[in-house]
Amino acid sequence: MADAEASAELQEEARPDRRTLQVLRDMASRLRIHCIRATCSTSSGSSAEIMSVLLFYVMKYKQSEPENPDNDRFVLAKRLSFVDGATGWLGQGLGVACGMAYTGKYFDRASYRVFCLMSDGESSDGSVWEAMAFASYYSLDNLVAIFDVNRLGHSGALPAEHCIDIYQRRCEAFGWNTYVVDGRDVEALCQVFWQASQVKHKPTAVVAKTFKGRGAPSIEDAESWHGKPMPRERADAIIKLIESQIETNRNLEPQLPIEDSPEVNITDVRMTSPPDYRVGDKIATRKACGLALAKLGHANNRVIVLDGDTKYSTFSEIFNKEYPERFIECFMAEQNMVGVALGCASRGRTIAFASTFAAFLTRAFDHIRIGGLSESNINIIGSHCGVSVGEDSVSQMALEDIAMFRTIPKCTIFYPTDAVSTEHAVALAANAKGMCFIRTTRPETMVIYTPQERFEIGQAKVLRHCVSDKVTVIGAGITVYEALAAADELLKQDIFIRVIDLFTIKPLDVTTIISSAKATEGRIITVEDHYPQGGIGEAVCAAVSMDPDIQVHSLAVSGVPQSGKPEELLDMYGISARHIIVAVKCMLLN
Amino acid sequence: MADAEASAELQEEARPDRRTLQVLRDMASRLRIHCIRATCSTSSGSSAEIMSVLLFYVMKYKQSEPENPDNDRFVLAKRLSFVDGATGWLGQGLGVACGMAYTGKYFDRASYRVFCLMSDGESSDGSVWEAMAFASYYSLDNLVAIFDVNRLGHSGALPAEHCIDIYQRRCEAFGWNTYVVDGRDVEALCQVFWQASQVKHKPTAVVAKTFKGRGAPSIEDAESWHGKPMPRERADAIIKLIESQIETNRNLEPQLPIEDSPEVNITDVRMTSPPDYRVGDKIATRKACGLALAKLGHANNRVIVLDGDTKYSTFSEIFNKEYPERFIECFMAEQNMVGVALGCASRGRTIAFASTFAAFLTRAFDHIRIGGLSESNINIIGSHCGVSVGEDSVSQMALEDIAMFRTIPKCTIFYPTDAVSTEHAVALAANAKGMCFIRTTRPETMVIYTPQERFEIGQAKVLRHCVSDKVTVIGAGITVYEALAAADELLKQDIFIRVIDLFTIKPLDVTTIISSAKATEGRIITVEDHYPQGGIGEAVCAAVSMDPDIQVHSLAVSGVPQSGKPEELLDMYGISARHIIVAVKCMLLN
Repeated sequence: MADAEASAELQEEARPDRRTLQVLRDMASRLRIHCIRATCSTSSGSSAEIMSVLLFYVMKYKQSEPENPDNDRFVLAKRLSFVDGATGWLGQGLGVACGMAYTGKYFDRASYRVFCLMSDGESSDGSVWEAMAFASYYSLDNLVAIFDVNRLGHSGALPAEHCIDIYQRRCEAFGWNTYVVDGRDVEALCQVFWQASQVKHKPTAVVAKTFKGRGAPSIEDAESWHGKPMPRERADAIIKLIESQIETNRNLEPQLPIEDSPEVNITDVRMTSPPDYRVGDKIATRKACGLALAKLGHANNRVIVLDGDTKYSTFSEIFNKEYPERFIECFMAEQNMVGVALGCASRGRTIAFASTFAAFLTRAFDHIRIGGLSESNINIIGSHCGVSVGEDSVSQMALEDIAMFRTIPKCTIFYPTDAVSTEHAVALAANAKGMCFIRTTRPETMVIYTPQERFEIGQAKVLRHCVSDKVTVIGAGITVYEALAAADELLKQDIFIRVIDLFTIKPLDVTTIISSAKATEGRIITVEDHYPQGGIGEAVCAAVSMDPDIQVHSLAVSGVPQSGKPEELLDMYGISARHIIVAVKCMLLN
Repeated sequence: MADAEASAELQEEARPDRRTLQVLRDMASRLRIHCIRATCSTSSGSSAEIMSVLLFYVMKYKQSEPENPDNDRFVLAKRLSFVDGATGWLGQGLGVACGMAYTGKYFDRASYRVFCLMSDGESSDGSVWEAMAFASYYSLDNLVAIFDVNRLGHSGALPAEHCIDIYQRRCEAFGWNTYVVDGRDVEALCQVFWQASQVKHKPTAVVAKTFKGRGAPSIEDAESWHGKPMPRERADAIIKLIESQIETNRNLEPQLPIEDSPEVNITDVRMTSPPDYRVGDKIATRKACGLALAKLGHANNRVIVLDGDTKYSTFSEIFNKEYPERFIECFMAEQNMVGVALGCASRGRTIAFASTFAAFLTRAFDHIRIGGLSESNINIIGSHCGVSVGEDSVSQMALEDIAMFRTIPKCTIFYPTDAVSTEHAVALAANAKGMCFIRTTRPETMVIYTPQERFEIGQAKVLRHCVSDKVTVIGAGITVYEALAAADELLKQDIFIRVIDLFTIKPLDVTTIISSAKATEGRIITVEDHYPQGGIGEAVCAAVSMDPDIQVHSLAVSGVPQSGKPEELLDMYGISARHIIVAVKCMLLN
């Protein structure tokens, strides 16, 4: 009872005065007019009051420094815009907001809060519910999600229409502190946002009932007007009507943020020692990757790792064991894992690595795509690539991941062969601009590089070469060993081949490829544990396609592979040493 | 009161006798032993009682005819197996089950029911909640989802652990009739499945608390044993213990199904008339696609169309208007849309076409991938491809969809240029084996084929050719018009080029490409509204890579495009007639 009274008192305190409320209403009207002017449509206006209250009353930020780390964050998921972070398509914003809130609460331990405005249509999207589960599990009480329930989707009424209680029940069931509010009532909005700021251990959902086309007579809430332009005269008349309701011409300054974010430095991250492997050691690159992450975590305290319930398989568990406070278990929700990573990495607050089986990254293609478009610096690790996975089912073999990541603008794709090159890939990825993908292999492979070997993005390694080389064989990862075995065998028959380890698939070391091809009478064989489509072979073919003197023969996996032992599968699907030898001999016959 | 009594009586009636219950327990023990023998691990055993009750007491099916359309369906989502439909990775099964249940209730109007067994780990996966929302919205009361809540994921305890009430609240909030049950109690399981069969208008969720490693002392419910093999002696001892609990050696025959599924014929579907377009007409291929679907719907009553809240943009609305009873609005949940399509198409019950913006299909890459692996016959339509989308944001431009679909084994990729070829693509897709993808364009394009033109999968069209051709220009979709414009312009300068319209990107018409290249002194230019990676250019490069006399120059979109007018963007990103002309002249200079 006393608590309730105290709460009522505080609520009274937090209530804006009448004049402020009118200014907020007027700001909403101006935002709404702005929307109509920009689009000649009324479809964006439903959240004008919410925006007004958030931007001019609730949120704390420096207007002149939009990137200031102390600022509250605002993720506008419902429209296709980049207010903050890597949103861009509906349903992705909340995961990004979760990453920002997680970073604020656990890494920065700072006062800034995160607000995410979503449409009701988005709630059909599963990745929203991945994020809802994540936020409550991690008690992100610095996160507020606003559902703008305006009833209408792109092509008509949404499943839950204006049944606000459906949204409320779902949010509550997913563990959120939930308020229902009239989204047109600026006073009520101020109240719930204040209440949200007082709640501990739970994220807050604000379910706001709104109307599309608000303020526009005969258009408000009508299905047929979504996204459609209206005649200019009509727009002008509506604008005039809204203008007539504006009573003040005052502006509100946002509150200044509390300046308690730590300074961070995520540039020029270096491993503190060279790789601790000897040539001939046997270790899986997925394990070397886990070890490298832990070492990198030692070098820089803003290195964080995320995983999707696969940490024992990807070996991100090694990092987790050493730095549990910098490890985020995202469970089986790859879309949200990528979204969270994007949020964690935004404003340069962390160096984020997200790992899972490479095959499961196909789940997050759209999130990866949008992350690429927004030039995020996140690093993604995909283990268990190709048929060399072996006994597991084909659904767990990544045979399309290179094709997927190659389409991401400015994405660097590392495909390290041994433990030494894996450690370098991790360090290079930490410093690289743009998204990085590191493809790791399940079985153990032999260390072939000395600890002193230097690696650069876009620089392939020529592992075997002599003046008598007749064919250039290009491999990466597991197939490098097949190429080396083929070279050994062919050597016995006095056939010399050049062997190249690509190290990065994108960018491709075209200079080394072409000079090697020229030195081997124009003959190239590529061999990869991936489908031909969009893979290494096609990348090489495209790179040399204008050179009439170069021929490329590509060995790759095709069809739907069965399960088996790794070495059996490499042979069964045509990418083993034996197949390379046959291809070399065939090429020399022609 | 009377109702409750009646219900109690019925429940009594539905209760299996003691002997049957013991047989069901014994069957569970045998299943559990089978699991341990097969994997030398106890991790799969948690659902043995559920499986026993479903397979030997609840479900109605002909054991000798697993594909019989009257059989109840069982989708085992929690393990990586293919009991029915296109499951394969966790989290996808329920969407497929929704498609089967929708088909049973609305298309077949038959008595068969659908059961989907899921793990608790899957509930982290957003696509499960897309399916949960779908099933309740469409009142799929012939669907039962069983959550096997054994507390453990791949790498440790799950977020909700054994908090059964969390699962219960979430299922209820998503509109499901929900029961909580001890998953080890066969009698209780029989009861809830019977109750589920009595419920109208709601799908039923059975939240079953179970234990991994059940029956295995010191392994039951322990985190460290998941998926790990144990020593054979230990396995033998556990098997012995479980065997000692078996009391009967009776088998139970499943109940026979009610034979009320209609006979369907989905083979040899033909349009009832040739395309009704005249050369020179202007119509967008996305609209022609919508019209073709409606026409196909007239030709065969098992043609169904799904869409993801984009029906006015993809023009699937045309089909919806004519055949609303065969149109499924899936809202903004592309993963679930593909899952539902897979379920609808399983056992050859329907010819399913699912459409949305091609860019949003990246959301469903994993579902598409698994659909491909399971050799489903679904057809997917992606509209708004490439920069020719124009004014919309880059997040809505598909520039990676060809790369994505090319990786799907046996997937046919249609990229029709005009309305006539679009109509043929739709008809060919309806009859093709394996998955099909049809890529459509937003702006209007001119009809270039006569209604009499014949189209075949893998057969390109040579649109311009003469004996003096010096370069082969390969286009598809919108770029064919740019190639034709370039040909017209070059003709004025007495430069002759051959113009090819690919029609299908996969399979590629390698014969026509190589013969054309040979006829044009080995010169090929490809031009595509897509990123270079995994696109048409790379496909062509790979196809001719062993031919030393052929050079390929590829024009494609790179970077992150801005918004603008379609024709401006085609030019800005290097794939307009002007760029083709420059490329032709450059090639002729060398």
